[in-house]
Amino acid sequence: MKVYYLGPPGTFGEQAALDYMHRTGLVAELVPLQSHPEIVAAVDGGMDCYGVVAIENSLGGAVIETMDSILASANVMVRAEHVLAIEQHLIAAPGLALENITVVMSHPQALSQCRIFLEKNLPGARLEASLSTVAAVEEALQTAGGAAIAPQRAAELLGGVILARNIQDVDNNMTRFLILGREDAAPTGDDKTSLAFTVPDKPGAVVSVMQEFSRRGINLTRIESRPSRQRLGEYVFLLDFQGHRLDDGPATALRAITEDVGARLLPAGRPLGSYPRFDG
Amino acid sequence: MKVYYLGPPGTFGEQAALDYMHRTGLVAELVPLQSHPEIVAAVDGGMDCYGVVAIENSLGGAVIETMDSILASANVMVRAEHVLAIEQHLIAAPGLALENITVVMSHPQALSQCRIFLEKNLPGARLEASLSTVAAVEEALQTAGGAAIAPQRAAELLGGVILARNIQDVDNNMTRFLILGREDAAPTGDDKTSLAFTVPDKPGAVVSVMQEFSRRGINLTRIESRPSRQRLGEYVFLLDFQGHRLDDGPATALRAITEDVGARLLPAGRPLGSYPRFDG
Repeated sequence: MKVYYLGPPGTFGEQAALDYMHRTGLVAELVPLQSHPEIVAAVDGGMDCYGVVAIENSLGGAVIETMDSILASANVMVRAEHVLAIEQHLIAAPGLALENITVVMSHPQALSQCRIFLEKNLPGARLEASLSTVAAVEEALQTAGGAAIAPQRAAELLGGVILARNIQDVDNNMTRFLILGREDAAPTGDDKTSLAFTVPDKPGAVVSVMQEFSRRGINLTRIESRPSRQRLGEYVFLLDFQGHRLDDGPATALRAITEDVGARLLPAGRPLGSYPRFDG
Repeated sequence: MKVYYLGPPGTFGEQAALDYMHRTGLVAELVPLQSHPEIVAAVDGGMDCYGVVAIENSLGGAVIETMDSILASANVMVRAEHVLAIEQHLIAAPGLALENITVVMSHPQALSQCRIFLEKNLPGARLEASLSTVAAVEEALQTAGGAAIAPQRAAELLGGVILARNIQDVDNNMTRFLILGREDAAPTGDDKTSLAFTVPDKPGAVVSVMQEFSRRGINLTRIESRPSRQRLGEYVFLLDFQGHRLDDGPATALRAITEDVGARLLPAGRPLGSYPRFDG
């Protein structure tokens, strides 16, 4: 069994994979890949493997490419979700103190997420870009007066020390990950279902879809629309609801939106998957 | 008159601001700021200025922080939209050819967006991170065998030459920008309106909101929901529709969703703004 994630080791993708394996008791080999599309393709074409991908509010704006890849992969299903708090720390070699730091390295996005801390506490420090937060820790540990902005696991892996915790400007920054496989999960009684669909080009079609859920008391937890990559002016809708696709109400609603409303479920004529709701 | 954009000069934010000024005949001083929240705050607190911010599908995943800032700024309104094709080029000093390139520099996100091109055409080149695409061009022009990945304007500003055009993996990558001011735009007959709202916590409330539009033949062009930053479990809905908030149908629908359905429009009890639809 393999679990693919967005490398290098030490980034939030690996942390999400480790957390998921820990809480489900899954034993597997962790394999870093270079992009979200590669992870989705590996699951789509492979057996006995899962993939962990960021889907909402992630560092790096991966949402769009991740969902595009999933929508192009008929064998991939969503089998779990995981939500991770994004916490950035200032990391340096053992023995250094905040007043010794003259250069701060990280992925430019992490640097810009911590701008208030840097302006207040290290106004004189030079900022230097790295290809990833983990590369930043490697470089900082070899640089006189160097510190990196990175997640805790990068410090653990590489032997850095945390000089300041949780230094990002916006607290409570969460990233939602999906765990992908060739099958989704069995009903547990507390599930969510994700689907993607297009609707016929007539007024009110989207409202009709939503009504099929609301009239059955099914709670929608996410709605999103975005332009289809296939046809200009066509929209793809992404929808999450509470419940499993095999539960009575959702099963009837799903039949109604395809047969009565004419919605087309992407990519394979069925929901993207049902899975246990993550409750921290 | 000032127009704020996300600096440094030469990035897509400046290009969007220039394009907008060109097509509307606006004469103003372009002022680079360091973050989207800073741009929104400058417009919220200032007179005689506009702000240009990326809102959808942007390099850098700016969507969430931009919208959060707008929702916290009661004086800011959306007065125009602009859509820009994101085209990345390989840029180097005059005289260099593709086979001379040994190191490629850029913002890590631009590097990862061009991975297929790089693997195919420059498999031996080293990748180096920069704080921005513009900084990458500056550095590349001073580095033997150096090239940068950046937009065309960065090459123009700094005297670089384009060695390969449109090298991003995914073609047709568009970013939508909003132009913010203290007032929105007057009706033109071909407008859009953006609103953000919360709904009372009862089943079907969101569907009721959408129905007030669809029953009046008003086309919804974007729907999105996301967790509110204020209260856990509360969702904020973002909705764009065709038409101006002062047009008859939209005006009635807006009254119905607040008075009958109980929706609360954010941040100031009115739509975020109405503005001419961008048609390229």
